[in-house]
Amino acid sequence: MYTLEKFEEASEIVQNITSETKLIYSRYFSEQTGNKVYFKPENMQNTGAYKVRGNYYKLSKMSAADKEKGVITASAGNHALGIAYAAKKLSVDVTIVMPATMPLSKVHKVENYGANVILNGNCFEESYEYASRLAKEKDMPFIHPFNDLEVSIGNGTIAMEIFKELPTVDYILVPAGGGGLLAGVATLVRMLNPKIKVIGVQPSGANCIQESLRRGEPVMLDRISTIADGVAVKAPGEALFPYIKENVDDIITVEDHELIVAFVDLVENHRIIAENAGLLTIAALRHLDIKNKKVVSIISGGNMDIITLSSTVQHGLAMKDRVFTVSILLPDMPGELVKVATIISELKGNVIELEHNQFVSVNRNDAVELKITMEAYGTQHKNKIFEELVKKGYRPKIV
Amino acid sequence: MYTLEKFEEASEIVQNITSETKLIYSRYFSEQTGNKVYFKPENMQNTGAYKVRGNYYKLSKMSAADKEKGVITASAGNHALGIAYAAKKLSVDVTIVMPATMPLSKVHKVENYGANVILNGNCFEESYEYASRLAKEKDMPFIHPFNDLEVSIGNGTIAMEIFKELPTVDYILVPAGGGGLLAGVATLVRMLNPKIKVIGVQPSGANCIQESLRRGEPVMLDRISTIADGVAVKAPGEALFPYIKENVDDIITVEDHELIVAFVDLVENHRIIAENAGLLTIAALRHLDIKNKKVVSIISGGNMDIITLSSTVQHGLAMKDRVFTVSILLPDMPGELVKVATIISELKGNVIELEHNQFVSVNRNDAVELKITMEAYGTQHKNKIFEELVKKGYRPKIV
Repeated sequence: MYTLEKFEEASEIVQNITSETKLIYSRYFSEQTGNKVYFKPENMQNTGAYKVRGNYYKLSKMSAADKEKGVITASAGNHALGIAYAAKKLSVDVTIVMPATMPLSKVHKVENYGANVILNGNCFEESYEYASRLAKEKDMPFIHPFNDLEVSIGNGTIAMEIFKELPTVDYILVPAGGGGLLAGVATLVRMLNPKIKVIGVQPSGANCIQESLRRGEPVMLDRISTIADGVAVKAPGEALFPYIKENVDDIITVEDHELIVAFVDLVENHRIIAENAGLLTIAALRHLDIKNKKVVSIISGGNMDIITLSSTVQHGLAMKDRVFTVSILLPDMPGELVKVATIISELKGNVIELEHNQFVSVNRNDAVELKITMEAYGTQHKNKIFEELVKKGYRPKIV
Repeated sequence: MYTLEKFEEASEIVQNITSETKLIYSRYFSEQTGNKVYFKPENMQNTGAYKVRGNYYKLSKMSAADKEKGVITASAGNHALGIAYAAKKLSVDVTIVMPATMPLSKVHKVENYGANVILNGNCFEESYEYASRLAKEKDMPFIHPFNDLEVSIGNGTIAMEIFKELPTVDYILVPAGGGGLLAGVATLVRMLNPKIKVIGVQPSGANCIQESLRRGEPVMLDRISTIADGVAVKAPGEALFPYIKENVDDIITVEDHELIVAFVDLVENHRIIAENAGLLTIAALRHLDIKNKKVVSIISGGNMDIITLSSTVQHGLAMKDRVFTVSILLPDMPGELVKVATIISELKGNVIELEHNQFVSVNRNDAVELKITMEAYGTQHKNKIFEELVKKGYRPKIV
């Protein structure tokens, strides 16, 4: 059962392990949306995600006997980091079953916090199966990554901090996979101030809570597809669903490509990195049909792999028309490259990459393909460059 | 003249315009260096850099008559953003001369804060010349971007905040170009607590303060070369130099390539973006010959252009042996690609890019060049993959 007392207790307790993640006011998103937008930056939390809260509270509340046994869990992501960090702080042994397909770097990071890692299974579900079996065999407490009321209360402490800093908040946006964070936040908000709206945000390709709310009961999705791996869950936590149904005002879904744009916006305007699940509530800001409200977007985590980061930046720039590539067929004569380059440079297009291919045609008038990748300031600028090339007699193609 | 009263006054005043940039404890850099390392994240400051402090204090202290006239300055970077933001807040007109070579996106950002921008000159020095001439012609107050005691006092308020949060600090690392921030911080520190060491950090390719301290007087460097454009200055501020000489304990220099590694470390461990000048004090951490001290690295700004960001990530990963490319010549027979791919995959190398070139040789045994770009976990892992390829009879070359 959720009670206000437990949330209060958890808020005290988690301070032993959390960094203070103060709200960040976003001038950019406030102007874009006509609201006052703040971030709760749990991407800057210890271990890079909020999960450390719930795990620490859960472990703190365990009996001495259970602590002595050590705990077991399964995870493919932030939960592993969070519980490893929390367990170390409390000197509890923790065994984490992770998929054998995990990148070694992630495994190292978890081990570095002092956890025993067992690699077993090809996906989270298989690791989960194995971990629960192991827990029974060895009579060790098993910690579910999200379907656990106490974990959820610990995570809900985020809402208490939001209240303290911004008591006049109108909307809180919460990223949601299985609903652990969402249930905790929504329930505490309802207890404290029913005027505040709590909106869950899910990827449209992994919207199990939205579907479950439509049907009035937890449903298991057949398949899910999203780049937000932190919330890629097929079914909401059974234990939490009644609270979600009771206390959440709405679910918004966003598309993967919106996350990429949100990523670039966040880097350019706030110089912080969020992982895709953490970006859900940023992307959702543009879906809100409200004005002049105080909105807090919870950025749940920031553990984006740096190679993914790099390709996300590339995609994001392309999607915002900040980088684009044109292909132009040129006659095979000296001076042609200079002409094209001059047009682009006069319009302040910044060439990033040039590909010059002599073998595309036997027609000497279309003999050379020039592929130019350049930086622009957005759609308007891109169109201007494109139209100027057309006006000067070229037939550019966006590729 | 610097006085403690002015620093106190400035600390009060700048609170009207600054966001609170709380110290961030760095577990990663603390472990790496054997000290307790904290960041003062002015990359998260309004406008993305500390410059807003000094400019706001400077403008606040101007006479009503001067404010009425409007001010003029020159800048190619963060100073422009800072003064535009400060001037808007105080309803002072500001004209900023920027080099005509500035990317439009940067110009737009400054104009967006309400400043009048004049594009004139091919580099900062030329813009500066033009701006000072204009100031004289029009009898408008000219604000120097760094060689100004009041601006420097405003920027020095960073040190006051560090004291309040961490009174037991032992070392403060300060990025330094012309020395505006360094003079302010060092002088305030000396006034408040002479036990605390203040170290300036400069790029080894733009170390005007280090050279000036060696000769005992301000010197002008013939040429400078650094990717840290925010501190790419040929000579220290004349007005500030005596204070730097008096109050700074040491200057450390770092190489450009160290900044790139620092960038990746910061992204991976703290999920924040710093510009190259801001990374100086992070890179300098590895140069300190101290243990068990409390060290604060001031991250001066975060305005790294996103295309630069993307290429910095690429370079950084290559430098940390987290991404590398091998070229292998293969006989032109079916199955060869599978063999090589198997070796790499068994060692958990993660292939990012594959180039297969059929036309490199007429010798059928070395007929095909395979270029494989892959992700590794660092130097050890890279070497292991390389050696395994050699052991299996290939002659890989790192490219």
